[in-house]
Amino acid sequence: MTTLKNDTFIKALLKQPTDYTPIWMMRQAGRYLPEYRQVREQAGSFMAVCTNPELACEVTLQPLRRFAFDAAILFSDILTIPDAMGLGLYFTEGEGPKFKNPIRTATDIEKLPIPDPEIELRYVMDAVRLIRKNLEGSVPLIGFSGSPWTLATYMIEGGSSKNFAKVKGLMYDQPALMHQLLDKIAQSVAAYLNAQIAAGAQAVMLFDTWGGMLSGDDYREFSLYYAQQVRSLLKTEIDGQRIPTILFTKGGGLWLEDMAATGYDALGLDWQTDIGQARARVGDKVALQGNLDPMALYAKPEVITEKVKTILQKYGNGSGHVFNLGHGILPDINPEHVKAMVDAVHEHSRIYHSIPQ
Amino acid sequence: MTTLKNDTFIKALLKQPTDYTPIWMMRQAGRYLPEYRQVREQAGSFMAVCTNPELACEVTLQPLRRFAFDAAILFSDILTIPDAMGLGLYFTEGEGPKFKNPIRTATDIEKLPIPDPEIELRYVMDAVRLIRKNLEGSVPLIGFSGSPWTLATYMIEGGSSKNFAKVKGLMYDQPALMHQLLDKIAQSVAAYLNAQIAAGAQAVMLFDTWGGMLSGDDYREFSLYYAQQVRSLLKTEIDGQRIPTILFTKGGGLWLEDMAATGYDALGLDWQTDIGQARARVGDKVALQGNLDPMALYAKPEVITEKVKTILQKYGNGSGHVFNLGHGILPDINPEHVKAMVDAVHEHSRIYHSIPQ
Repeated sequence: MTTLKNDTFIKALLKQPTDYTPIWMMRQAGRYLPEYRQVREQAGSFMAVCTNPELACEVTLQPLRRFAFDAAILFSDILTIPDAMGLGLYFTEGEGPKFKNPIRTATDIEKLPIPDPEIELRYVMDAVRLIRKNLEGSVPLIGFSGSPWTLATYMIEGGSSKNFAKVKGLMYDQPALMHQLLDKIAQSVAAYLNAQIAAGAQAVMLFDTWGGMLSGDDYREFSLYYAQQVRSLLKTEIDGQRIPTILFTKGGGLWLEDMAATGYDALGLDWQTDIGQARARVGDKVALQGNLDPMALYAKPEVITEKVKTILQKYGNGSGHVFNLGHGILPDINPEHVKAMVDAVHEHSRIYHSIPQ
Repeated sequence: MTTLKNDTFIKALLKQPTDYTPIWMMRQAGRYLPEYRQVREQAGSFMAVCTNPELACEVTLQPLRRFAFDAAILFSDILTIPDAMGLGLYFTEGEGPKFKNPIRTATDIEKLPIPDPEIELRYVMDAVRLIRKNLEGSVPLIGFSGSPWTLATYMIEGGSSKNFAKVKGLMYDQPALMHQLLDKIAQSVAAYLNAQIAAGAQAVMLFDTWGGMLSGDDYREFSLYYAQQVRSLLKTEIDGQRIPTILFTKGGGLWLEDMAATGYDALGLDWQTDIGQARARVGDKVALQGNLDPMALYAKPEVITEKVKTILQKYGNGSGHVFNLGHGILPDINPEHVKAMVDAVHEHSRIYHSIPQ
């Protein structure tokens, strides 16, 4: 393993002193970059890029050539696990991800295999290995997975959903069956993330995109419990190096205390949550990642700089903050505006790290 | 004015003692009822029902014939004001509301008229008068409007939006222009609600459907400030009767303290917010309305009863709770399941009102 040239991101997640606040961006490898659109067009589809380790590596590295991001994130999809379970992931223009064979019956759940990441998800592990090699230790590589609850919603609904009628119908009417499904997914997610760690991921993040659709009680029972299960199964030390873990629940701002008690090193914050208040609530237990409104990148660069300064100021002095958007960047954002954000974070965060903690 | 035979809803909003917890349901007049679907089909469209006072009255009364709801709510749409401003509201199947002439320029905002509710929105006032007459004082009638922020989002986006790119672009890049628009809408909303009150609405509710898409700071500046403007302009006493006011921000659970400081009598809660925690935070200042997950109505009646009991128990002893869903009922819910909810609220809430406060 190469020694990291820039370990600011890892240190911030572990709340160790850094010189400045590190930044990366959800969907930093993506459609807002013309060089990404070119690769995707040549490959023919999003999944063709995901499943080809060379292409996945190339698009992972693209944003790092433009911007001074402090971490790379594996280019992949949150739905690779259900695809490996045999549900048949595909994408339709404008409608997002879909499954050919969604979960419909108790038998479907019974028969669901737990994939072997080095077999059915080999293309992901090969991408991780290739990206690690090509990064040459410049910045750490983040691995990730969808959360058990979020994967279950797509697996039952068969795709994106506005109301989550099917998955909630099952949850409310047959909670035991729902738990059986979530338990199986949690085991698969843990195996998948452990394989990414073994292949070279230096931090891992669990994306709970749809946990925020639940009531507080249901969130704890059906989403957070399984996020914690995953955490408890993760091997977070490799060759003497700690692998920090991040939990992100979109719409989870009300439940930060519960999330902070699960053992993850850091919580991702959506942009609705005030990061100053979040730090006051849970900042002694976890690092915080976030949380500029992705839509703020539509504004002029000088406005973006001001918004960045506000978030840095709200977090305040000391380590434990990784700057990010509160959700993924949108495809029609001007890359120059991303540069304004990255530069503002690096320039204006140093004052918060100059005081010994 | 007729004396109310059942004023439980009004009393609960004013935190006066009641015998049981009152209940009504967002979208209680709607597509889940076959008798509603029949009226709508005959009328030809949703707007044809809204703009015909006799039909609007008929569908408003329909759910009260089936269920022991403690309030009626005017059948209308949250977007009648921008329609009356000349934006040309229309509905497309599966895509929701749209505007023919969305706001595009500063001149569009400049030219926007403040509608006279008794002229351009006469059909709404006629419906209010007719419903009041036909209710014969059985239960109170709720009037409503979309919030200034929520109306602005539709007016700028031209319809529903996933990312609110246009409205947020304007907000971040030209905040002064955004404030100009919101100020004009707030004046229109206040005039509209005051006209509904004058026509007979006995409580009014402001629906802030999209406030939850904002960061906390932006919510206070662009949504809540104008909800408070509206509140300050409302005439909330008529013929010696108090007209209680309700503010509902979907996704607003993080900001209840700010919402409770605006002068509204009650806050609507979405289902993500724990009503017990909400009461602990703001229950000394405001009544609370909510907040069963609308999707819980997919469950078996006995499960629904248990979920109702949990919410009643979380709110606890004393007045100040109006039971409701956390958002509108979905079109494919079995009406028998609504009955299970209404009956459970009435049956299981009496124990919380038997202790003198």
